[in-house]
Order: sequence, then structure tokens, then C-alpha cells
Amino acid sequence: MEKLHHYQAVIEEGIKKLNLAEHPNNLYEPVRYILAMKGKRMRPVLTLMAADMFDVKPETVLPQALGIEVFHNFTLLHDDIMDNAPIRRNQPTVHEKWNVNTAILSGDAMLVVAYQQIANCNVGVLHKVISLFSKTAVKVCEGQQLDMDLPQVQKATSAEYLYMIERKTAVLLGCSLQLGALCAGADKQDQLNLYEFGKHMGIAFQLQDDILDAYANPDKFGKQVGGDIIEDKHTFLLITAMQTNPEATAKAMAKSNQEKVESMLNVYEACGVRRKAEELMHQHFDKAIEFLTAVKVDASKRQPLHSLAESLLVREY
Amino acid sequence: MEKLHHYQAVIEEGIKKLNLAEHPNNLYEPVRYILAMKGKRMRPVLTLMAADMFDVKPETVLPQALGIEVFHNFTLLHDDIMDNAPIRRNQPTVHEKWNVNTAILSGDAMLVVAYQQIANCNVGVLHKVISLFSKTAVKVCEGQQLDMDLPQVQKATSAEYLYMIERKTAVLLGCSLQLGALCAGADKQDQLNLYEFGKHMGIAFQLQDDILDAYANPDKFGKQVGGDIIEDKHTFLLITAMQTNPEATAKAMAKSNQEKVESMLNVYEACGVRRKAEELMHQHFDKAIEFLTAVKVDASKRQPLHSLAESLLVREY
Repeated sequence: MEKLHHYQAVIEEGIKKLNLAEHPNNLYEPVRYILAMKGKRMRPVLTLMAADMFDVKPETVLPQALGIEVFHNFTLLHDDIMDNAPIRRNQPTVHEKWNVNTAILSGDAMLVVAYQQIANCNVGVLHKVISLFSKTAVKVCEGQQLDMDLPQVQKATSAEYLYMIERKTAVLLGCSLQLGALCAGADKQDQLNLYEFGKHMGIAFQLQDDILDAYANPDKFGKQVGGDIIEDKHTFLLITAMQTNPEATAKAMAKSNQEKVESMLNVYEACGVRRKAEELMHQHFDKAIEFLTAVKVDASKRQPLHSLAESLLVREY
Repeated sequence: MEKLHHYQAVIEEGIKKLNLAEHPNNLYEPVRYILAMKGKRMRPVLTLMAADMFDVKPETVLPQALGIEVFHNFTLLHDDIMDNAPIRRNQPTVHEKWNVNTAILSGDAMLVVAYQQIANCNVGVLHKVISLFSKTAVKVCEGQQLDMDLPQVQKATSAEYLYMIERKTAVLLGCSLQLGALCAGADKQDQLNLYEFGKHMGIAFQLQDDILDAYANPDKFGKQVGGDIIEDKHTFLLITAMQTNPEATAKAMAKSNQEKVESMLNVYEACGVRRKAEELMHQHFDKAIEFLTAVKVDASKRQPLHSLAESLLVREY
């Protein structure tokens, strides 16, 4: 994990040096604000780690890593408007601290800045880099739309849910890795294996998020257990329960607070929803590791990504 | 003007063939909707005309032209949300017909689609193409922010106004032309001359818009004369009047409807605002033609752009 912390520090340093314009301040201050909210910087770290696998100095792909992080934060900024979210990482969201117009426009500028960073690469791979990033960015927009569409679908299926989270969440992890590999001169097969590794890891971790919300140990879990249930958030658990026993699920949904959580957990239990989610999560995790293992480099070179994936998997809760 | 109509038809055809995805429909239908609103397609036509100057088949730069048009429509879509505008080209705006979330997200997707089109060029110029487009896109965002900031500035200056419209409106015309020239293999000096031609033309036509709103012949003008005055829209006329005689301007602003228009026109008259605006407009127009004339091609090759610029200049109103 030493490598992880080193790379996180490299990203923090890179963000500080992004050299955003000062004027007009109302456009750029929100950008600095959201970028300064310290997250795990997982996506750009993946880009650096992927390049490192192919003996390329990770700093070489720092612009692409930063571009990915700026893009990710652009999506958070605009998603927060759409979800009407007041808080992100314990701080007011941009549309709350400023206003919706500022949040829209600063987000737009961030998408352009992301492209500027991404395009700062070897001319020989530039066309592929832009093409991969654009294809991914379009999918992320599609994922967000599918997510917004879900509540209108009376009978959402778990297949639709998985299709949505693949776009909304997983493909950007895949792209982060492939970009690093592509810029480091990896061959197409290795690039695609890393893309698939990231994608399946992304799906596995989204499923894990869904599971933890319902089943985490309250002492270890950072937030309220059952929060998703209370908010009627579409998760794999809820959608699968609805598909399996719509009446019981609807009945549990109609309740409120702690009673709602307990009722829903009973429905989940009766529908075998937890087991299904855990099985699917492990399938995607194993699939991810398979793709990683297929990358044609020494096992020692794969180790940091392998460790990172393992460290993110919560085995006990 | 035959060339103009031909190029407009080429753009319409190109837009129809853009091959946008179908699914999710809620993301792509608004994109199709706004792109189908027929405007003059001035910006992409400039791209085609610029390439034609250097004996390159205009169709070669069609993707870049389409990218510019998609980008322009993305800015309209997001600006309409920010301006709370209900109507665009006699049709409901996207956020009115659908909702704000859809308008934000479809706009985001359009910015990505614009990049996909723009990047569809010769690899030899790709880096410069992306860099020019990104630099311009950032300036357009800055221009929109400066425009939103203006109402908060009690004492906006005409210099600030010109700085704002250069970014919000003029640089994209410059970029449209330079992109066409760049992709057609023009040398740097010719590219920059065309950029400056477009930029000054853009400033001249924004000033003309401001002037026409107050002084157009109502029989020839498509909309209500004095509309900007009634809405307190920041124009070169209003800002210059405010700088020259703030008391009288504020007094006129406080009135309403036709009385407001008449009062304000009297203030403009007393401040010599119309003459200042017309002088400045002609300065920029002449400057534009100077830059066009400096492009190192036969005069016959410059003719279509020259004619287009002349045709947009309203000499009698």
C-alpha cells in the first residue's frame, strides 16, 4: 500500500499545479473547491499504476491521470445538481455554496480542462487516447441518464441495473487503467485486459456498496446502515427483491425509518437477495482478477493493482 | 451567396448523418431536437469556407464543422437553462420541453460528441486541433460567466462588455475559421489572420445586434424594437450610456414599456451612444476585412468570405 500512498500524493501535488486561470473567479473557484475535496483519488491512481506495469515512469501519464480526476469531479458536480444533493464529502456541494448556474458552467469548464489534460500525450497515441476517453465519457452520461430513468421504470430488472452501473461507474475505472497502459505503449490485448479488470472491479465494488449499506457492521461503517433502504435508493438488493416478491417489497417500502429497514431486511432475507448479491460481486471480482492476471507482465508488476483490488474488498462485515 | 446555400445544405445533411445513439432516448432525443432547429449554421459554414480557400475539398473538414455546430448548440442549451429562457427559435427550449436535469446531461453529452467530431481529423494536426478547440471552449465558458457577472457590476464599463462578447461570441467564429484553415494545411500566419477576421467580425455583429435592437426599422426587424431596453439587457448602448450619464440612464431604466424605450432612446441620443457604437462596429468590421485580405491566397479565393461578411452587415436600417 506504500505505492498507493505515494501515487495519491503525486495526484494531490499534480492537482495543486493544474494552473487553472484566476479570472473570472466565479468560474474557476468552484473548480478549485471541488478538486480540493480530498477523495481517494482512486481513478487517477489506477492510471499511474497501469503505466508503471509497463516500466514507464508513472509521472509520464500524470496529465492523463489528472484529466481522469477532473472528469470524475465534473460528473460529481453535475450529478449533485441533478440529485439535488446538499452535501459532498462533508462540505456543501457547489450548487449549494454558489448556485445552479455556477455549478453548470464550472462543470462545463472542467470537462474542457479534462480534455486538455488528457490530450497532453504522445502524438502517436493521441487519436486513440481521445477516442477512448470520449467513448467512455459518452457512456458515463448514458449511465447517469439510465440512473435517472430507473425510478420511472415500474419494473426495473437487475440486468438493467447492472447495465446502468457498468456505464455510470465501472467504465471510467476501465478507462483510467487503459489510458495509462495505452500511453505507456502496452499492446492492445494488455490494454483491453486492464480495461476489463477495471470494469469488473467497478461493478464488484458498486455491488459491495449496495451490500454494505444493508449489512455493514454499524461500528465499522461510516454512515447509517440502511440509508439506501430509507431513501428508496435503487440498489441491486432492492431491484432483485422487487423482481422476486413485488408485493412484499412494496409493502416494506411503504413503511418508514427503522421499521422500514427491518421490514426490508426481512424481505431481502426471504428472497435470498443478499446471497445473490454476494455471489455476483464475487463473480465480478474473480473475473477482474482473471483479466489482470492475463496481462503479459511479471507477476510482481501486477502486484500493486492486485493488492489494491484486494484491499478494497471487504471480506468481513 | 450560392456557395453559402450549398454549404448550409452540406451542414444540414451532415447533421442528419451524425449517427447519434438511440438509447437512452431521454439523453439523445433532446440532442436531436436542438440540432434540428434550423439556424443559419454560420459557424460550420465558416469552417468549410476556410478550407475551400486553400483548395481543400470542404467535405474534408465536415467533421470539424459539425463539431463546431454541436458545440455551439451545447452552449445554447446550457445558456438557456442559465438565462431561464423558455423559447429558442420559436420552439420550447430543452429544459422547458423536458426538464433542467435532462438539459444539463444532454448538453454534457453534446460537448463530448463535439470533441469526437473535432478529433476526426488528420493525425498530423490533431494536437493543434484539440488545443485550439479546447482553448476556445474555455474562453466561451469564461464569456458566459462574465456575462452572468455583469449584472452584479454596478459600474460595468464598455471595455468589460467588449472583453465579454469577445469571449462569449467572437472567439468561436475565429476558431471555426482557423480550424478549417488548420485542417486544410494553411500556414500559421494565414490561420491566425482568419482567426482574427472571424473574431472581429463576431464583435462587429454583436455590436450590430445591439444597435439594431434600438434603431431597426420595425417593418424589417423580426422582433420588437427596444426589446433589449425593456429587459434591461446589457448592451454596448446601455453600458456606454450608464458610463456617460448614470443618473439619466438609471431614471430611464426605472420606467416601463414604450415609455422606457422612448426615454432610453433620448438618453442614448444625448450621450451620442449610437454614433459611438456604429463607429466601433465599423472599426471592427474594417479590421476584420484587413485580416481577411492579408490571407495569402488569390482574391477570388477570399471572395466567398468577403461576400458573406458584407451580406451580414446591415447598411440601412
